[in-house]
Amino acid sequence: MTGSAALFTDRYELTMVDAALLDGTAHRESLFEGFARSLPGGRRYGVVAGTGRLLELIERFRFDDAELEWLRANEVVRPATLDWLADYRFHGDVWGYREGEAYFPGSPLITVQATFAEAVMLETLVLSTLNFDSSVASAAARMVSVALGRPIAEMGSRRTNERSAVAAARAAYIAGFDATSNLEAGRTWGIPTMGTAAHAFTLLHDSEEAAFRAQVAAFGPKTTLLVDTYDIERGVETAVRVAGPELGAVRIDSGDLPTVVVAVREQLDALGAVNTKITVTSDLDEYTIAAMSGSPVDSYGVGTSVVTGSGHPAAGMVYKLVARRDDAGEWVSVAKASASKVSVGGRKNAARRLDSTRTAREELVFVGDGPEGEPEFESGDRLRPLMVQLMVDGEPDASYTGVAGTQAARAHRAEVMQELPIEAFRLARGEPAIPTTYR
Amino acid sequence: MTGSAALFTDRYELTMVDAALLDGTAHRESLFEGFARSLPGGRRYGVVAGTGRLLELIERFRFDDAELEWLRANEVVRPATLDWLADYRFHGDVWGYREGEAYFPGSPLITVQATFAEAVMLETLVLSTLNFDSSVASAAARMVSVALGRPIAEMGSRRTNERSAVAAARAAYIAGFDATSNLEAGRTWGIPTMGTAAHAFTLLHDSEEAAFRAQVAAFGPKTTLLVDTYDIERGVETAVRVAGPELGAVRIDSGDLPTVVVAVREQLDALGAVNTKITVTSDLDEYTIAAMSGSPVDSYGVGTSVVTGSGHPAAGMVYKLVARRDDAGEWVSVAKASASKVSVGGRKNAARRLDSTRTAREELVFVGDGPEGEPEFESGDRLRPLMVQLMVDGEPDASYTGVAGTQAARAHRAEVMQELPIEAFRLARGEPAIPTTYR
Repeated sequence: MTGSAALFTDRYELTMVDAALLDGTAHRESLFEGFARSLPGGRRYGVVAGTGRLLELIERFRFDDAELEWLRANEVVRPATLDWLADYRFHGDVWGYREGEAYFPGSPLITVQATFAEAVMLETLVLSTLNFDSSVASAAARMVSVALGRPIAEMGSRRTNERSAVAAARAAYIAGFDATSNLEAGRTWGIPTMGTAAHAFTLLHDSEEAAFRAQVAAFGPKTTLLVDTYDIERGVETAVRVAGPELGAVRIDSGDLPTVVVAVREQLDALGAVNTKITVTSDLDEYTIAAMSGSPVDSYGVGTSVVTGSGHPAAGMVYKLVARRDDAGEWVSVAKASASKVSVGGRKNAARRLDSTRTAREELVFVGDGPEGEPEFESGDRLRPLMVQLMVDGEPDASYTGVAGTQAARAHRAEVMQELPIEAFRLARGEPAIPTTYR
Repeated sequence: MTGSAALFTDRYELTMVDAALLDGTAHRESLFEGFARSLPGGRRYGVVAGTGRLLELIERFRFDDAELEWLRANEVVRPATLDWLADYRFHGDVWGYREGEAYFPGSPLITVQATFAEAVMLETLVLSTLNFDSSVASAAARMVSVALGRPIAEMGSRRTNERSAVAAARAAYIAGFDATSNLEAGRTWGIPTMGTAAHAFTLLHDSEEAAFRAQVAAFGPKTTLLVDTYDIERGVETAVRVAGPELGAVRIDSGDLPTVVVAVREQLDALGAVNTKITVTSDLDEYTIAAMSGSPVDSYGVGTSVVTGSGHPAAGMVYKLVARRDDAGEWVSVAKASASKVSVGGRKNAARRLDSTRTAREELVFVGDGPEGEPEFESGDRLRPLMVQLMVDGEPDASYTGVAGTQAARAHRAEVMQELPIEAFRLARGEPAIPTTYR
């Protein structure tokens, strides 16, 4: 993707900069923190996603002439501030959780250190990317864990905005999905793409058999035939007759899946198509996938539920000023104090405490006003540091961006899942799998 | 926005084209229909949005060299099909509901007539735009109706993908919101933008008073001051002291709003700031807005709930082949027959039956296989035709696109709301406000 990201921004970021430039506070060095106050829906853990996309978008966060002209014509900020915006590029440092990391309430997912003006401008972009992508990844990870190793493909592009679909495919892949139907996600992020035919293809033809013959002619017998346009039993019979017993797979997109799948498996076996796989795709979510754990299903395709965060389409992350330097150059912790939205001020560092079996037991958040550095880890159980430096002077660490960063995030998530306690994988509502402790 | 939309597409659209080009069925003239089988969450009506954006995206649906090269390298389709894709542009006709129109289950929201290959390729894009934007607009319209004329601003960019945020701002505006915080939505779609300051601005300063002074210095006393960073009562007192009784507004973003708002109104009046308005912005949705109908609130800012469709982030629309010509050139109705997802085949036209008080009573869907044309309206009550031609030979009707189209959609929605029966505006779950009848 190309183009500036500068106007993916709430107007008040710019008006704050405008006012702060006027009284000089805009240049105070500041520390903003992104975190989630809770996990939605009684989930046990969340999965961080969006970080790699965010780093690329921050790097491209510049105001071009057309954008500046629009801001001028609409009198969004004073002319002097337009000059400042024209020169804007982010020069700060960013630390945070690696993409693919598990997180819990209060985990300091991202820390942005820069002047107030430089850092506050990124608020909307930071939250848009992390909230949406983490929402998808957090839902997707639950689906992956209950799929018990069976492959899952993301097929939800049509159920979300055409551009968020690309981000959703990426987030689901990081969370362990195996492929996507979305071609742009394949091109931009290197995610394997898949897809064969819809009901329209069958209806286009004079008969189901003609449709299957056309598909096999184009893609060979190893293709996946959609067998439920008219009558599933007849569809399966026709599919094997047309493609032969080496037919790759049949797809079922309707009906009471656990019942239908058993019948289709028996029919395929009776027809000699013992290696033909069964993939199902009808409004699946983590609960219906879990309910098919004993069914002879080979793979899943998931649409609406994964791209909409399975009931929780925004992860609820916030971006707060937690510290700033005073006129004497000293760091001062700051926090909002009003009802029900209390924040913990100050710079944070974090580590996950693992017990002797390498099982996570506690999310430790170290609070301090000083500059960054290694937290003072306690002895005993192993502590795994959670924060890495993501940007140095406005430059992203390339290991976290692009196709390689996406692959690394997916691999990191797989490792992290190994250390979560078994309670983390319960679908039922409950407490976070490990407590967050401020030290 | 610029750039191609061709890869915002599920892989199976291209593989279907590939197979259908091989057996010649790709060129069969076809009719696809977009509709919703139901309204989510027991809502009484939906609001169509996304149409204007969609028309612009269809016009730009071309495969550029980089996209073709990626498809070639990944062997998505056969080389002959790549040549066909290289020449692709949509030449078909599109009819549908005007953007901003109310809709009900089965309403034929969009009808695409073209060759199978040209029309099937648009499936993902049609559904992404209509599902997301209509989800937002349908939720937003409910908020507008319970706000009883008080202005509402859309402030949810941070709770959805950075690009879907722009579409969400537009959809909410069409549904009757008055402004957005999103700057790109202002620039691209001409939507009024708004915003003043966040808690970070107060925390940046050495005191709340210093922050207020900075903001008033930049924007004058008519600005909106955020008074709940520390203590609301003290915040209000400081705000009026700094800005004077001509202070434009105070914003409250936390606490039990109905209680807090009454106290703040009394305090403002006692301080002589009788014209200072109160705006509230704390996790509002249609239910909390309705609960403040008797509170002295002047305006609302809504974030998460509107951009995520207030619990229903995808409108559930589908895009189905409903008719095609056979080899003799005759139109043949087609429909999937399998369990639980039955569709009604054939070309549709639609009208809303209005009674003598101009109140909507019935959604009439006329089913026929022939070419488009005026439905045979029955006598008696007035019938308002619902479908207009949106594209002719691949060219959008300019009255439905761009800034002007967005304004027209907003005005159309306001008119349509006038004709809905009073039951339509109940928040409680129930049946659609009017029945859909197939004729």
